Amino acid sequence: MSDTAGSRGTNLDPWYDLYAERTSGLAASEVRALFAVASRPEVVSLAGGMPYVSALPDSLIRGAFSSVMTDVGPTALQYGSGQGVPALRERILDVMAEESISASVDDVVTSTGSQQAIDMVAKLFLDPGDVVLAEAPSYVGAIGVFRSYQAKTVHVAMDQDGLIPEALREAIAQQRALGRTIKFLYTIPNFHNPAGVTLSAERRVEILEIARSNGILVIEDNPYGLLYFDEAPPPPIRSLDEEGVVYLGSFSKTLAPGFRVGWAVAPHAIKEKLVLAAESAILSPSSFNQLVVSRYLETADWRAQIDTFRGVYRERKEAMIGALGEFLPELSWNDPSGGFYVWVTLPEELDSKQMLPRAVTELVAYTPGTAFFADGTGRNAMRLSFCHPTPDRIRLGIRRLANVVGGELSLLDAFSGTGSLRVVDDERHVVSPPPDLG
Amino acid sequence: MSDTAGSRGTNLDPWYDLYAERTSGLAASEVRALFAVASRPEVVSLAGGMPYVSALPDSLIRGAFSSVMTDVGPTALQYGSGQGVPALRERILDVMAEESISASVDDVVTSTGSQQAIDMVAKLFLDPGDVVLAEAPSYVGAIGVFRSYQAKTVHVAMDQDGLIPEALREAIAQQRALGRTIKFLYTIPNFHNPAGVTLSAERRVEILEIARSNGILVIEDNPYGLLYFDEAPPPPIRSLDEEGVVYLGSFSKTLAPGFRVGWAVAPHAIKEKLVLAAESAILSPSSFNQLVVSRYLETADWRAQIDTFRGVYRERKEAMIGALGEFLPELSWNDPSGGFYVWVTLPEELDSKQMLPRAVTELVAYTPGTAFFADGTGRNAMRLSFCHPTPDRIRLGIRRLANVVGGELSLLDAFSGTGSLRVVDDERHVVSPPPDLG
Repeated sequence: MSDTAGSRGTNLDPWYDLYAERTSGLAASEVRALFAVASRPEVVSLAGGMPYVSALPDSLIRGAFSSVMTDVGPTALQYGSGQGVPALRERILDVMAEESISASVDDVVTSTGSQQAIDMVAKLFLDPGDVVLAEAPSYVGAIGVFRSYQAKTVHVAMDQDGLIPEALREAIAQQRALGRTIKFLYTIPNFHNPAGVTLSAERRVEILEIARSNGILVIEDNPYGLLYFDEAPPPPIRSLDEEGVVYLGSFSKTLAPGFRVGWAVAPHAIKEKLVLAAESAILSPSSFNQLVVSRYLETADWRAQIDTFRGVYRERKEAMIGALGEFLPELSWNDPSGGFYVWVTLPEELDSKQMLPRAVTELVAYTPGTAFFADGTGRNAMRLSFCHPTPDRIRLGIRRLANVVGGELSLLDAFSGTGSLRVVDDERHVVSPPPDLG
Repeated sequence: MSDTAGSRGTNLDPWYDLYAERTSGLAASEVRALFAVASRPEVVSLAGGMPYVSALPDSLIRGAFSSVMTDVGPTALQYGSGQGVPALRERILDVMAEESISASVDDVVTSTGSQQAIDMVAKLFLDPGDVVLAEAPSYVGAIGVFRSYQAKTVHVAMDQDGLIPEALREAIAQQRALGRTIKFLYTIPNFHNPAGVTLSAERRVEILEIARSNGILVIEDNPYGLLYFDEAPPPPIRSLDEEGVVYLGSFSKTLAPGFRVGWAVAPHAIKEKLVLAAESAILSPSSFNQLVVSRYLETADWRAQIDTFRGVYRERKEAMIGALGEFLPELSWNDPSGGFYVWVTLPEELDSKQMLPRAVTELVAYTPGTAFFADGTGRNAMRLSFCHPTPDRIRLGIRRLANVVGGELSLLDAFSGTGSLRVVDDERHVVSPPPDLG
């Protein structure tokens, strides 16, 4: 049953035979392992997607908390509705209106971060063997959720204008020719994680039309939409269609992830099922957190606060793009117009995953491209996050990264006479796959 | 694929055909529907399991919050570890020590309420068709989770000393004879929800031995253990064995459910997988809430606070048992030594689910027994909660309930000459099952 895990012979877990089939797909993500590394203060971490919460004045949170305890203390401490606190769902309508989405308070379901909403949507729709279409690359946390329900993530090519409609049509045709069932398209149209690009307005219309005509639901994940640098991105796909889109929003990037408050907006029948699935999973999201966020939105000038965040991240993005141009001109990267990430493409012969231990030795961390693909591709790419370190630290990190890349390239040069790194004289250094991966 | 839902002909959901097979088992629980009713202030709700959070001095929460913001504000607002905040996991060891459990901080995983821990354990272990053994009756929220992973809950008889070891042996033999795979025993040894009884010390040893010798994992759910009235219950099963038990704890009853902070303690290999499953589902539990709870445990006299809760609930339990004796002497019930619930058995001819609308008309609510069985039994039983209403309201509620029961019994009496309620002259009143339940 769990034979696929492959390491049975040496497993010391007495409960090994009892795990569900889906559990064999559970593995520590590359991002997770990096969190441990990144927490050492001497490392410049360009790896995680942690927002810069220190830019949030702590008086705003204290004020919201105090007003919650004074006005609705017992409600905050009690179980709440599985769909979420009504007052917060009202405020979420205001937040979405900033991005031209109109919805009813009854369409909104709050969740324990938008990650939980991804998990619930996946649980509602995915049978083993089903296909989810997603950009190539895509958000590591979503790929993990889809795998946890034994679904297959099929990547669809993107370019500087986001997901390519023609590639989407081809992927649909190809998967259907293989007899597979496509359940939904998971897409991050704004300031894509990890690719950093934004889907053009024309393509939003076209992609929606392709999904509609093929009976495929669109899951639109939009945690970064309000964090643009100069110009707002085109309105979300959800603003074009209410019936074919499940829209996911989050306060993790525009306020603070520590509250774990996100939300979904879904067509009526799906919304009803989302609430039931969420109740089964957690009974109700934290009333306390939802009310604190709700009061924050009522009492603070949250639009001005988001504008402050925009300024912080714009400055950091510029520091990163500037440093890349200065220290790593031989690489290529995109220049995002919002969000947290730059996607860097390395020379074909470099492997970002193999290079990571060297980078950590040189006190800089990033996320290898392979984390963002379900199929093992992405070796010569990496995601760099500019959200958390200061501009000076970002420059320092990129300078260190240049050393790492330079070092790897000279090493390759030195070996170029002998053909490949994998063939060396000393038998102790012959690189062969370990037995359990054979 | 989803044909089992049965109502296809009239379904207006355009995405109906795309749902996963497991989604057909999603249905609004009886408890959920009651929450809406119970929120009307004129109704005395003996239905929900909401703790009496007003007994918690609000200064304790304000103090904990303020100390979190002053000392570790940015950490509270940020993403945290998937396993949970280490400081809180340390404090959880103190809480569990009160019940004779010794564990390492590395064995503890915090969760979004212990409901999420039930969900994660189920996700790790349950394949479609697998069997979970549970008391008859059992916690409605756990039964729902097991169903959501397409597993079958098989109930095992209990009596005034809790789960009956011999019945457990028989159930195991019977399920195995049917060729089914039993993954775990889900049990609530202390002040059982909904049955109100406590598993005896001798049976804890015996049940653990049965589970062990049959290679069945024990999931021990213990939200109420510290809320005893006079004498502490026997030590949890986890105190007898570290390798065969996943133990679940919660702050929802001993502090406040609005924080959604619970935890699991699991054998090492299972713990590793629990963390991965939780990261996939929510990335990390709320740092903010975990730190507020952690500071509360550090700064407040939480043992004294729990003792206050004990006094509150003891008084309410006495009010309920007294009122039952006074107003409903013809029924039978147990007298719990802790927790929130009394399990009431009605005369065989009464149906608590059918009676509920009448009860709501008479301004009292309870949970019908059927909610706590996966197999539709429990019609002549109900769960009464004494946790939330004041003693006076409890008396009022039971008096109203006596009217309801009396009314139903006279109605049955009046019809006893004509054989059955289901046969009446007027065709408009013939009771037949609706087509979709046929």
